[in-house]
Amino acid sequence: MTATILDILGIGNAILDVQARADDAFLDAQGMVKGSMALIDTARAEAIYAAMGPGIESSGGSAGNTCAVAAGLGARVGYLGKVADDALGQAFAHDIRAAGVAFPTAPLQGGAPTARCLILVTPDGQRTMNTYLGACVTFGEADLDEAMIAAAAVTYMEGYLFDPPAAQAAFRRAATVAHAAGRKVSLSLSDPFCVGRHRAAFRALVAGQVDILFANEAEIISLYEVHSFEEAVEAVRAEVGLAALTRSEKGSVIVAGEQTLFIAAEPARVVDTTGAGDAYAAGFLAALTRGLPLAECGRWGSVAAAECISHFGARPQADLKALVGG
Amino acid sequence: MTATILDILGIGNAILDVQARADDAFLDAQGMVKGSMALIDTARAEAIYAAMGPGIESSGGSAGNTCAVAAGLGARVGYLGKVADDALGQAFAHDIRAAGVAFPTAPLQGGAPTARCLILVTPDGQRTMNTYLGACVTFGEADLDEAMIAAAAVTYMEGYLFDPPAAQAAFRRAATVAHAAGRKVSLSLSDPFCVGRHRAAFRALVAGQVDILFANEAEIISLYEVHSFEEAVEAVRAEVGLAALTRSEKGSVIVAGEQTLFIAAEPARVVDTTGAGDAYAAGFLAALTRGLPLAECGRWGSVAAAECISHFGARPQADLKALVGG
Repeated sequence: MTATILDILGIGNAILDVQARADDAFLDAQGMVKGSMALIDTARAEAIYAAMGPGIESSGGSAGNTCAVAAGLGARVGYLGKVADDALGQAFAHDIRAAGVAFPTAPLQGGAPTARCLILVTPDGQRTMNTYLGACVTFGEADLDEAMIAAAAVTYMEGYLFDPPAAQAAFRRAATVAHAAGRKVSLSLSDPFCVGRHRAAFRALVAGQVDILFANEAEIISLYEVHSFEEAVEAVRAEVGLAALTRSEKGSVIVAGEQTLFIAAEPARVVDTTGAGDAYAAGFLAALTRGLPLAECGRWGSVAAAECISHFGARPQADLKALVGG
Repeated sequence: MTATILDILGIGNAILDVQARADDAFLDAQGMVKGSMALIDTARAEAIYAAMGPGIESSGGSAGNTCAVAAGLGARVGYLGKVADDALGQAFAHDIRAAGVAFPTAPLQGGAPTARCLILVTPDGQRTMNTYLGACVTFGEADLDEAMIAAAAVTYMEGYLFDPPAAQAAFRRAATVAHAAGRKVSLSLSDPFCVGRHRAAFRALVAGQVDILFANEAEIISLYEVHSFEEAVEAVRAEVGLAALTRSEKGSVIVAGEQTLFIAAEPARVVDTTGAGDAYAAGFLAALTRGLPLAECGRWGSVAAAECISHFGARPQADLKALVGG
């Protein structure tokens, strides 16, 4: 096995976030389920955008956020994801590269525009997401940089990749390439509704190809169709070598073989929860690929998540290395 | 004189802000003058963007910011400014309309892209701006909605309009139309360097066509080429019916004929000063057009400015009506 060139290679839907504040009545009127992510088409995207308040645009995408945070923590990071050759795609590419992440994927020419996620942030800090996938639906096996995958200690993929059809195949191929090179494969379940849409595929993947799993309480319960978090912990213990399960203000639980570690959440004033799970995964993987013990991986995850929820937007605004004391 | 339909009609450069954090060494390396606005061409815009950190995009433009804040304070507001028919232009139009501002200007077809301002925010909260004018340079007399001007109690224009050549003529025409309808004309000097570029034109305009002048200390001293703020106060008193001069944490001074009012700044934790002057003008004019006394106009200005500097970005994030107790 050759030396790694990257600590983490993220693969995901390359998305620009458009965030606006909204109240619960707006979500109700629009038929949105608070805290979840809905896939929308062009017409619905235009209708929601017309109805929502003034926006702030910033680069997003679950795995993209994770990569930016991990780079901020000093990890060597790459990212694969599809934007279009338009203003939003240029902003996405600029932002992820400016965060220190290698981003080689060629932009889509002459097709759908760059994906965007219309995010409504309610006064309780919860975010409700509406994703127009745009150029992301064309991401496929041809976009995999197999040399990068083989050179990365961990290939990290977001569950949202199961929504665009071509990405599913790319996902499985990336996992195969990573394992052939002796590397680890990590998955974030992303969203309980995404798990519901693709449960069988997720179950097969988790049992067969995932070494490090990230999920929150609702997602892991949905994956195994159990009735309690405790049952889900035992189910995941039987199938995956390492799992980190996040529970918002209750912190996280790390499950590794016989071991179960309970990690406290870091105190934070909640402004906007967008990207909290992405940031947790970044902190965890940045510490793990540095060779730190699991308890420290959990602490880095908590610190990164706390920084993320303390401000509007999913990309880091503080000096993360200073926050973890690294 | 017919009844007004608008309290404030803003005219300005319609710009998308791209904000990133930077340190003083970055400004030095790029040859930027901290706290000022520089006009840049396409090549320089691309070079700065490539060098700067991850960005957050939001609608900006000095008068555009003022209009959004004034609408948030309950004023009836319109805005004239030129965007292109592209993604950034659509975002600008969405945001200002979502803020409750009427925005009738047709987008430019097939010319330069929507203007953008690359803003570097240093750890002290100061912003240093680099503006690529793009579609703004085509704004001219043909874009004036003269019926709107005639129906607005105050037509408010930013000094930056003196940079694109066609806008200067539009500026003078708008002032003439407003006065013919018995309305007031207001000007913000925008930037000491902008004053330096166009001092003679500004002097003629202020003496001949401006009823309500906004400026900060550096701008008013530059306009009159005097050596102290006190001299500038007397110079403006001799020429303009009403002037509001802002002095950052020292508050503002309102000069109205024989009257001189000293207004305290509202306490605020400075995160980003982008838009502070725009917000002050908004608060002042929203109170003035509501018929409130000058001291209250100054207080509304201070409250709006304090809200603005307490967060990243120039558009309001809080319930401004609640903040002024209105």
